[in-house]
This record gives sequence, C-alpha cells and structure tokens, in this order.
Amino acid sequence: MTARAEFQIAPWELRWCGFDLDVLPDIESIFALSNGHIGLRGNLDEGEPVGTPGTYLNGLYEHHELPYAEGGYGYPEDGQTIVNVTNGKTIQLFVQDAPMDMRYGRVIEHEHVLDFRTGTLRRDTIWASQTGRSVRIRSERLVSFTQRAVVAIRYEVEPLDSDLELVVQSDLLANEAVAPPGSDPRLAAALDRPLVAEFAAAQKRSAVLVHHTRRSGLRVASAMDHQLDNVPDNVCTVHAEQDLARMTVAVDLAKGDVLRMTKFVAYGWSSRRSTPALRAQVDAALAQAKQTGWDQLVARQREYLDAFWSHADIEIEGDVELQQAIRFALFQVLQAGARGESRPISAKGLTGTGYGGHAFWDTEIFVLPVLTHTMPEAAAAALRWRHSTLERAKRRARELAHRGAMFAWRTINGDECSGYWPAGTAAPHVTADIAYATAQYVASTGDEQFETDYGAELLVETARLWMSLGHHDSTGQFRIDGVTGPDEYTALVDNNLFTNLMAQHNLTEAVAVCARRPVEARRLGVTAQETAGWRDAATHMVVPYNPDLGVHEQSESFTRLAHWDFARTPPSSYPLLLHYPYFELYRTQVVKQADLTLAMYLRGDAFTAEEKTRNFEYYEALTVRDSSLSACGQGVLAAEVGHLQLAYDYLVETALIDLHNLHHNVSSGLHIAALAGTWMVCVAGFGGMRQRGTELTFAPALPNTLHRLKFRILWRGSCLAVDVTAREATYALQGGEPMALTHHGQPFTLGADPVTLPLPEPASPPEVTHPGNCAPYRRA
Amino acid sequence: MTARAEFQIAPWELRWCGFDLDVLPDIESIFALSNGHIGLRGNLDEGEPVGTPGTYLNGLYEHHELPYAEGGYGYPEDGQTIVNVTNGKTIQLFVQDAPMDMRYGRVIEHEHVLDFRTGTLRRDTIWASQTGRSVRIRSERLVSFTQRAVVAIRYEVEPLDSDLELVVQSDLLANEAVAPPGSDPRLAAALDRPLVAEFAAAQKRSAVLVHHTRRSGLRVASAMDHQLDNVPDNVCTVHAEQDLARMTVAVDLAKGDVLRMTKFVAYGWSSRRSTPALRAQVDAALAQAKQTGWDQLVARQREYLDAFWSHADIEIEGDVELQQAIRFALFQVLQAGARGESRPISAKGLTGTGYGGHAFWDTEIFVLPVLTHTMPEAAAAALRWRHSTLERAKRRARELAHRGAMFAWRTINGDECSGYWPAGTAAPHVTADIAYATAQYVASTGDEQFETDYGAELLVETARLWMSLGHHDSTGQFRIDGVTGPDEYTALVDNNLFTNLMAQHNLTEAVAVCARRPVEARRLGVTAQETAGWRDAATHMVVPYNPDLGVHEQSESFTRLAHWDFARTPPSSYPLLLHYPYFELYRTQVVKQADLTLAMYLRGDAFTAEEKTRNFEYYEALTVRDSSLSACGQGVLAAEVGHLQLAYDYLVETALIDLHNLHHNVSSGLHIAALAGTWMVCVAGFGGMRQRGTELTFAPALPNTLHRLKFRILWRGSCLAVDVTAREATYALQGGEPMALTHHGQPFTLGADPVTLPLPEPASPPEVTHPGNCAPYRRA
Repeated sequence: MTARAEFQIAPWELRWCGFDLDVLPDIESIFALSNGHIGLRGNLDEGEPVGTPGTYLNGLYEHHELPYAEGGYGYPEDGQTIVNVTNGKTIQLFVQDAPMDMRYGRVIEHEHVLDFRTGTLRRDTIWASQTGRSVRIRSERLVSFTQRAVVAIRYEVEPLDSDLELVVQSDLLANEAVAPPGSDPRLAAALDRPLVAEFAAAQKRSAVLVHHTRRSGLRVASAMDHQLDNVPDNVCTVHAEQDLARMTVAVDLAKGDVLRMTKFVAYGWSSRRSTPALRAQVDAALAQAKQTGWDQLVARQREYLDAFWSHADIEIEGDVELQQAIRFALFQVLQAGARGESRPISAKGLTGTGYGGHAFWDTEIFVLPVLTHTMPEAAAAALRWRHSTLERAKRRARELAHRGAMFAWRTINGDECSGYWPAGTAAPHVTADIAYATAQYVASTGDEQFETDYGAELLVETARLWMSLGHHDSTGQFRIDGVTGPDEYTALVDNNLFTNLMAQHNLTEAVAVCARRPVEARRLGVTAQETAGWRDAATHMVVPYNPDLGVHEQSESFTRLAHWDFARTPPSSYPLLLHYPYFELYRTQVVKQADLTLAMYLRGDAFTAEEKTRNFEYYEALTVRDSSLSACGQGVLAAEVGHLQLAYDYLVETALIDLHNLHHNVSSGLHIAALAGTWMVCVAGFGGMRQRGTELTFAPALPNTLHRLKFRILWRGSCLAVDVTAREATYALQGGEPMALTHHGQPFTLGADPVTLPLPEPASPPEVTHPGNCAPYRRA
Repeated sequence: MTARAEFQIAPWELRWCGFDLDVLPDIESIFALSNGHIGLRGNLDEGEPVGTPGTYLNGLYEHHELPYAEGGYGYPEDGQTIVNVTNGKTIQLFVQDAPMDMRYGRVIEHEHVLDFRTGTLRRDTIWASQTGRSVRIRSERLVSFTQRAVVAIRYEVEPLDSDLELVVQSDLLANEAVAPPGSDPRLAAALDRPLVAEFAAAQKRSAVLVHHTRRSGLRVASAMDHQLDNVPDNVCTVHAEQDLARMTVAVDLAKGDVLRMTKFVAYGWSSRRSTPALRAQVDAALAQAKQTGWDQLVARQREYLDAFWSHADIEIEGDVELQQAIRFALFQVLQAGARGESRPISAKGLTGTGYGGHAFWDTEIFVLPVLTHTMPEAAAAALRWRHSTLERAKRRARELAHRGAMFAWRTINGDECSGYWPAGTAAPHVTADIAYATAQYVASTGDEQFETDYGAELLVETARLWMSLGHHDSTGQFRIDGVTGPDEYTALVDNNLFTNLMAQHNLTEAVAVCARRPVEARRLGVTAQETAGWRDAATHMVVPYNPDLGVHEQSESFTRLAHWDFARTPPSSYPLLLHYPYFELYRTQVVKQADLTLAMYLRGDAFTAEEKTRNFEYYEALTVRDSSLSACGQGVLAAEVGHLQLAYDYLVETALIDLHNLHHNVSSGLHIAALAGTWMVCVAGFGGMRQRGTELTFAPALPNTLHRLKFRILWRGSCLAVDVTAREATYALQGGEPMALTHHGQPFTLGADPVTLPLPEPASPPEVTHPGNCAPYRRA
C-alpha cells in the first residue's frame, strides 16, 4: 500500500502542500488539465522528477499487435493505444549552474492548486539549491477551453536571497522515455519512441516540430512561442532538432526581481493533412493565442467555467470534503468531454494511459448523462463521434455474421480493440447503451437536427443488431442468448436482464423515432414490417425472474448458481479477479459491479417498487464492487429504496475514488465514469431525478448527514434548480417556458415562480448486508 | 484443395506407387513409424525433398511463452511443444557426383509400403540421374517394438546400367530447418534450433551426439552404428561435430552388385541423467541392437505384431478398402501407444507436430478402450502416465480454488498448456474421462495391483474435484455450472449432460473402489462421510431434459437457443470455426462434435432405448462434425438405434480420415483418436459391445454393405472372438475360463465351445437429417 496524497479542503479548489515523491504519479493524474482535445498530466514544470510524463491528443493512437496463445475467427489483431506526444509544458531552470530539481537541494515550500473556477493549475515553490541559493518559482498553466488547440503557461522565477545567474530552458520534447504499460514486449516495442521526426524549425522565440506515429501514420505538429517581460532579445536563443526544440534564456537577476515568461503551445494532428498544412495550423493557433494574450486567455477560461458552474454546480451542506470532491468530479468530467468534438471520451479522459486510452460504455451510461444535463453540446459531440464509427460498427456486425451495427467494446478509432472476447465482443450492451444515450439526449434537449442527422440512424442500426442477435423461442418469447452484461464476473449467459431491458428500450426508441421521422426511416430502408418486428421483440423480451426467491435474475439461472464463499475469501484476495480465475468467478453468484441494480435505475419503469427493494437487497449481498463503475449505480438505487445513509456512503466512495486513491491505480489516470457517478448519486439518487422520454420526475430525499442539496440541470433549453432540505424541496426555473414535472409521484407545473413541496416520510427498507470486506468506503 | 495420395488396396499393407511432390507432406504422416517412444515421419531416406522432417521422442518438448492480449489469473504462461530431435534416418546417396534427389533426374519407379504385419516401412525406387545413370534404392526401416530405444534401417543400392562410383552418407543431424507452426513469432523462436550441442564423438562406423533443449533443459543422446557387407574398412570415414555426425562410404560398384548397409540408431533422453550416463545408455542400446542383428530385429517385430493381430484384428467382408483402412487404423493406434510407458499418448501419436504434440481427452475416451481390449499393458502405462501428473493436477485444482485433481486439458508434461481457457481449463470432463478409463481398465483386466497402486487414488482425487466443482441447489439437485463439454461449439454452460453423467460415473466408481479397497481409501483420507457425499451427489446429479421436445438437453437451456441457419451457410464456410466467431457458435444450436450422443454411448445405462432414438435424431440434425472426434461416436449410436447404413458411413469416414485426408491436415500428423474410433464403430457399433463394470454385453447387427464382421477382444485375461454375419453371431473363447455374456439382452455363458445366436430383426428408426454439407463422407 503506497502513501496517499493529502489535500486541503476548500470549496472551489484542490490544494496539495508540501512535496512527497511517492505520490507524485498520483498527483500528476489528479492535477491533470484537459479540454477534451489536449490533455496534460500535472507533471512538474521542470520535467523531472516524474511519475509518467503525459501529453495527450484525443484520438491520437499507435497500433500494436494483439497476441493470442490460441487465435480465433474475428479476434481483433490490431490494438490501439494512446501515445504520449511532444511535451510542450517543460520549462527547466538552472540556478547558478545547478539544475532546479525537487529531489536535490531543499524544498522550502511547495504547493499545487487546481482551481475549479479559473480552470488553471498553479504551482508555487520556494526551493534552495544544494549551495543554498533560494528561488521562488510560480507557474500557472491552462489548456484553453475557448481555443482548443492551445496550452498557455505563465512562468515566474524570483531570486530570494541574492542576485543570481539563471538559465531557463523551454522545450518541445518528443519521444520521452516512458515506462512500458504492462509486461507485453510487443506493446512496449510499439510505444518505444513512437514518433518519427518529419520537420523541425526555430526562429526568434518560437519553434515547431512535426512527427508522425510509426505504425498508425498519424501526423502531429507542435509549436511554441514565448513572451518575456523586460528581457532583451539577445539573451534568448532558440534551436530545433528532430525530437527537441528549445528556447534558452540566460539572465542575471537581482534579488527580488522576477523573470516572467509566458509560453504558448499549440497542437494539431491529422491522419490526412500534410506537414506544411499542419505546421500552418499550429502557427495559426499560436498567432491567435498570442493575439488573445495570457490575461484574456485566463479571463475567457474563467468565463467559460462560470457559465458551466451556473447551470452545473451541485451544492451540499454537511460535508465540506464531499463538497470539494463533487466539484472536483464535475470539473474533471467537464475536462474530459468539453471540446472532444469528433473524438471519444475515454475511460481515463486525457489524464493517463490506463486502459490504453480506450473509450468503453462508460461514456454513454455514466458520462453522457452529466453532459446532457450540463453541457449538451459536448454530449452531442460525443454521440457524433460514435456515429462517425458507425460504418466500422456495421462492418464488425457483418464480420460476426450479424446485421445492424455492433459497436466496439473498447476503442479509440472505432475498431474493436478487446483482446478477450468473452468480456468484449460478447458484451453487445454497449450498443444499446449508445442508443440509450442518444434517445436521452434528444428527449432532454429537443435537438431535432441531431435526431435527423445522427440519432435516427443510430437508433435504427442498433435496433437491427438486436433483431439479429435475438430470436423468438417456441413460446414466442424473445431471447438474447450467450452474451455478457455489465457484471464482468459473469459472462456468456442467456438473457442478461440488463442487456435485454436495454435492448428492449433500444427497439422501442427505434420504433418511436421512425414514427417521428418517416423521411429518415425511409432513407434508412425501414419498412412497416421491420418496425412491427421491433415492437414484437420488445413486447416479448425475456426478463428473467425467480418466483421462488421473488427476485429478478441477473441472467437466466443466475440464482441457481453456487454462492461465492465470502467467509473464506480473505480481504487480501480482493479484487477477486487478481486471485481467482474467470472460470470460478463466472460460475458462481458473485457480482463485480452493479448490473441488475444499474438496470433498475436506467429501466426503473420495468420494476415495481417492491421488486426494486427485494432485488436490491438480494444483489447487494453479492456485489463486491471490484469495478469503479459500481458504487454510483448502487448509490442511486440505495437512495430510491430508502437506504439513504448507504447511498451517502456510496456517494462518498465514488466521489473520493481518485482523491483517496481507493483503487490504488490513480497514477494511470482518473476514473472519469466514477467521477461522473458523483453527479448520478446526487441528482438521480438524492434528487430522485428520472427521465422517461420527455417526462422528468423527481423524488428527492436526503440522508441525515446532508442538510441540503442543491443542483441544477439543463432541460430542453431551460435551467432548472432543485434545492432539497430535510423536509422540502424547492424547484425553480432560471428562464424558459413553464414545464411539467413530478415530485414524488405528484405532477405539477413549474413556471417563473419557484415551487416548494414537502418530502414524504422516508421508507424503512429491510436491512441489507454486504459481502465480507465489501462494505462501502468510509473515511477514517 | 490439394491433391490426395492414392494407395493400392491390399489387406495387410499400404502401398503408394509413383511419386508426387504435392502429397509428400501427407505421405510422411501416413507412413510414419513409431513404437510410442520414438516416432519417425515417413521422410525419404535422402532427407530431401521433405514436407516436414520429423524425429520425435515421446515427452521431449520445448517451452515457449503463451501470449495473451489481455491476461488473467490462472492463465498458463508456459506452453510446451514437441521438438524435432536429432534425425538419424537420413542416408544420402551420390551417384557419380550427382546427389540422388527425387526432384531432379528421373523417377522411373517408386513405391512406399507400410506393412502392418512386419511393422516396417519399405521403399523401392529406380532413379536415373540427370546424366542418365540409373540406380535402384531399396530401404526398409523399423522402429523396434521389442527394443524401444532402437531404430534400424536396411539400405541397399544397386547400379542398373553400368558400374558406378557411389558415395553414401549416413547422418545424425540436429537442428534441421523446420517451417514454424503457425504465425506466432515467439513459438517460432522457441523452435528455431532448439537443441544445444553438448557432446559429439565418432569412431569406426559409429558416432554419438548429445544435446539439450534450450529452455526446457531436457537432454537427448542419439547414436548410430553401421554394418556394411563386403566393404573394407578403409572406404568408410566417420566424423562428428556439434549438430552433425556422418559416416561416409565411397565405393566403386559394378553393375548388378548391391551395396548393403544396416544402420542402427539409438535414442535416449532424460531431464536428470548426465551426458555420460545418456551416452552410455545409447551405446548400450546400440550394442544390444547389433547383437540382435537386423534379421532378428525384423523377426521379433513380426512376432510382436503377430501376437497383436491374433487378439486385435478386425476382419470384414464386403469392403476391401475399408478392411485395409481398419488395419491401418489399428496399426497406427498400436504405434501410438505400444511402448509409450511413462509418457503420454498424444493426439497425433508421434507422426507430426499438430496440436504441439499434446495429449487431450482423446487418449482416455477414444484410444484407451482399444488398448484396454487389445494391449492392456499399454493402456495401463498410459494411465500410469496420467497418475504421474497427479501432483500437478492437484496443484492446478488448488490454483483454481478447488479440491481434488484437475487434469490438464492439453499437455505433454502434465501442466496445463491451453491458451484459451473457455475450451481448456473450463472443460473438466477430461478429469472424469480419466476416471472412466481407469475404471474400465480395471474392470476389463481385473488388474488389482494397478487398482491398488494407481486406480484408487485416481478415482478418489477426481471424485473430489466434482464435489468441489458442483453444488446442491435449494431443491437438492447437484449442479455443475459454467463448464464446457466435448462440443467445442458450446462453452461455459450449466450442467453439460456429458460432463454431469461422466462426473456421476466418476463419483459412483470412487464410492465402489473405496468399498473394495478400504486400506487405500484410508491412506487417501477418505471418510464414510465423504463417500456418502459422493453417493448423494451422484444420485441427485442434474440431467437436463426438455419435456416439451422429449429430448435431453446437451446442457441446460440448450434446446431454447436459436438454431444455426444451415440454409444460409455455404459449403465453403466449413469448418465453421474458421468462418464464424465463437460468440456466434456458442449461442446457437450447432454442435461441432458428438457430445450428448457420445454420452449415450459411454453412459448408455442412463437412457432408455426410446430416449436414445429421439435424442439421436435431434442431435444428428445439429452436428456438423467439424471435429475428427465426432464420426465414431455418431457411428456407434447410429448402429445402436438401428441406422446401420448411416453407422457404416460414419465408419468409413473415421477409418479413411487420414488415408483420404478428409480434414485436409494429415500433413501435420494422423488423427489417432479418430483412427481408434474405427475400432469403436466396429466393436461397439456393429458388435454392440458395452462394458458396464465387469458386465459385458453384445448386440451385433450389420449394415447391408457388410457381409461379415469378426473381431476379437481381451477380457479379463481371455481372448473372445465374435463373428457376425447378417443373420447370426458366433462367440468363441480362445482359452480361459467360461464367461457370462449377453447377446441382445439374452444372457448366456460361453465356455470352450463356440455359441451361435441369431440376430433379431433390425429396427426401423425414424429418418434422420443432417445439416447442409454435413452428410457423412462417401467415397466417389
């Protein structure tokens, strides 16, 4: 167990004081900056010491071979993995010949501050060299939300005790040494110096480097320019070679004077554009950034975030650390998705190389609900990215002998990258999840253009997959056999309840969109017979239920499997997948992550309240939460069935997953979906918000530990604020048309005036138990 | 589709006339010689041209890494693969400077003869060099059944037109160039020059080389010595270096004179013995071979085979090609198993590198029944080999969180080598199959010593696995969930009928052996409570049945899966696994190989006659026979339910699988289990022989195409001959005590006098259908 970084608690920022080399890799992920297009790990300005140097461009990947001990038809042969591109954030300092390095000399003061309102990362260090020369280094960096190709850094150094000779080197550095992910020598080979130099140039205080990736052939250009206050040109030199461009400033600085430098970095990449075209692109981005200037870049970053928080903030009373964690989570979700545009939102955002930089179903089920209700244009962009992979998904379906579209389980470019088919190819629920997010987005925003251009086709092609994957048995029931649901401790089962209910929803939404958009339906070749088939399959979808136990089955026969022997499973044997074979996990009643429980949230309409209570109780006792995707779904259902304190515990767990490093792997990147789950527990859990098509309902309730919860959502162009206390809830519209809502089953219309409604008495559901060692996280 | 080798039909030999380079790789497998310890592919004496050079020692393997795109707990990391060891069979000839090579000059006559009675491979070639010098080359080689470390070759060359200068080179050659199996570069690297030279020496006409394998560290010694008639010592030179030892004879030979050379080769290998010890071992084997001499080696080979055929031969009337194929099959099964002793009988015997030289469940279910009834000491040896891996099997069970012994799905040294766990680790029926063969062997032979020393422990430790893998559900039924049965187009299912019935048998036999052998049971820690648990589990074993269809289910819910769309599956899409993903194969009613059908043979007592008829009809229509292990099981059941002509077709298919190259891969080795299946269809199919414990029953019946079938089996020390014609069957005892038998349900006692009994009228079962393109093979 490694040490954990400690942060000062504050409502709008994350502050790390002191310096501990052991937690530096974690800090780099937690303090990552991103606009969804460019991602910078929170590496120190001076480049070293470093856990993992990280500069990422969304969608820029390298190919590597996927090896198999025994191959099979349809196994993906090419993997994709995110590449650490040219590092433009490094600024090295030499104090009287000594390199400024936090490992040597003495760190007198140090703090890192991630500011959720300014969208910048600030650093403030007082450091003395081994010969006792002390300097103060302050820097502030941002990845611009408003100019997506641009990074800007303000860097200041000040001699504290005496006049000093200082040298500052500002670099673009390609092909940094990176520890290989995992033990596969082929993957390590693919990622060893992945960038091939094409072009380098420098002049005055600027430089540009162009590279392409060795196997995937993607071209990337990076450029930098600098502004220096009160420094004559003749102290600056600039140089560029294949993998390095460097501007050097050598100055004598008097004690108390400050050398201030502003560095602008721009990135561009493309699979098609030429080296001159990409160079022109980054030059233009730099010119625009300089024209805007540091102060305006900072001001616009703040404006962008002010606008975001004004309709996205969640306020709580009663837990200041949780308040901080909630805002951290929302900020990181925003960073992951804000300007991704035609690129995926990956499981780690752009904060690390975990999962190879791949996007999973995390995006649609966990992240997009947040964006749909707080930054709908980002949700639309993410869905347009999925749509851009539709041809690949259709090709994949055909390759696997199916019709319609079968989206990749994990991918960067849309092609399947899963090297373990029972938990990849065999998990088609990702396709229904995409359809679900599509339908929810359109209903929530009323974005008709999106539905016409993208949504209808997504719903139709995904519906076609289910008709191909499923079949009517001799009694007319519609079965989907041999698939894997969300729970990765169960695989290749018949009629996974989550999959079947999500497929049912997909089919129903496809019928509806074809009725709403007959022109598009015709263009897509949909016939009345086809929609009748969809309706029929949806109507007769198998929903496994065990009448003896009175609970639904996660999949057919699941409740007849042996129970996992939790009593004999020591705490050190979690996560189970590192200590037991899939063979054993699959054949027993042990659940890695919310599956049926998550279905009860997403498809709550398919269950009665009593069924939810019984099912929740049954599956809580089986769920070990070895996946970070679990706690939030459990939290929502816990709140719904009345386990408010348990829901609170799950909220804490999902909100603190990275700040408290609960999965011991934050160094490889943040758990963006779990962070998005923070919103889910607040809004859908304690707010009880459910969206069924264009119908919006609430059923707020708070645990004793929270005195107040206030959240805002965007809904069909309006911003709705919900303010919940122990006894009542107040709904208020921040502009827009009056809307019909439901409060604990009671319909009402909300106009310009806020409406306050009382909360019912909380339910008293039966106690639930958790597997040994699997109770929710509680802070010390 | 490649050309197919044509053979002359004869009852006791296989003769290939002419020469066709295209089929040479197939010929090399078909004409392989082996005694179960040493295997030689039927490579030409002169070494080239060659398909795959092959000299194998049973159990001698090299390690190689098993790679995974996504690893998992319990995945085997080390593979094993059979190694081509030092080639001692090469004898090159130079005719007036020209190398004798079948690709150059002119092949005037050529034939290869595999003689099933002499156990030798004869070659007779008349060849003319490019300059028109013609010679006759005759050779005969044997791998001795009586001296298991010894290979002997008689080699003759005769100038036909004129006096000739000839040079003969007789080699030991290590690290021959071999085409890598498959595309895995790591496997190719492991097999590239796998032998590291340790020692080389030569004197007079003999030489010895010692090597060890690079990674597995197994040491192998090979030695050769030569006898030459009428050749002075001074024309012979001998030389040895690291990877080559060579004896050279340079002579002037008059037209009509014959140069005759006898080459003796001996092999020894060990994981522990030193180089001097292994050298001594092969020197001793050579000395013994020379002392015996060529003529006596040949004579003893003949005696050995005469004894085998006297109680193993199967005679048929009505199909001369099939008669030849039956004897070829029996001969190859004998070659695979005769002298394996403490080593496995692998799927390809020692005829090629297919499946890496691994042993599977093929051994126990297909091969051991033949050996148990024709060469029981070989069956016992094969089971002792399994017993020798028991500690590894127990360790594997513990690694996978289970008790008892879990035998490897595929292995050479006993450790699991399967790189695809859903069809390897997840197929524990191999463990029940081993128990089945153990119980059958003991009951058939009455070998009490074997039971005491090995059998009891095998049955107890395997029974313990089932108690660990299975569980009683809330109704008391004993379930075995999440396993894979024989059908490799279905995986990770609940209550595979084959597995459950074989596990039931395993538990029952374990109870019985503990009752018979209380001392051993105590030694193994078996308590009365434990055996009661076994009995209870066996009694309540789930046997899936669909009452609506009136058929058993291959696994629970199998009959509710979608049917494979055979109508839309073109003939070119077989075998299906090369054209469809497992994902699709697993989730539909398509059967690769007899599974439930095979269970109806091995556990026929668990079904009524009517159930067998209905089940057979149902599963015939789903079974595509993409596995070579299928036709024989289908043939046995076809005969039992009265489809005698269909059974005949399956007999033809399994018997000709390699001679007609039906699976297009005979070049990588023979299908030993399918060849053993030839015996199964004759004896268990048309002979209707079933063994239930120590009870032996027959129900003979012949198809119209066969006028007579005569087979012999060993049974508790006696040899029983059964002679079946269209109307009656005659049972005769060749010595031994009178025995109780059953003929078509009618018990009788067979003493010294033969008993002739009439056959009942054949049944008329309902027609069966086969999937498109999957009717049994029929000769043109």
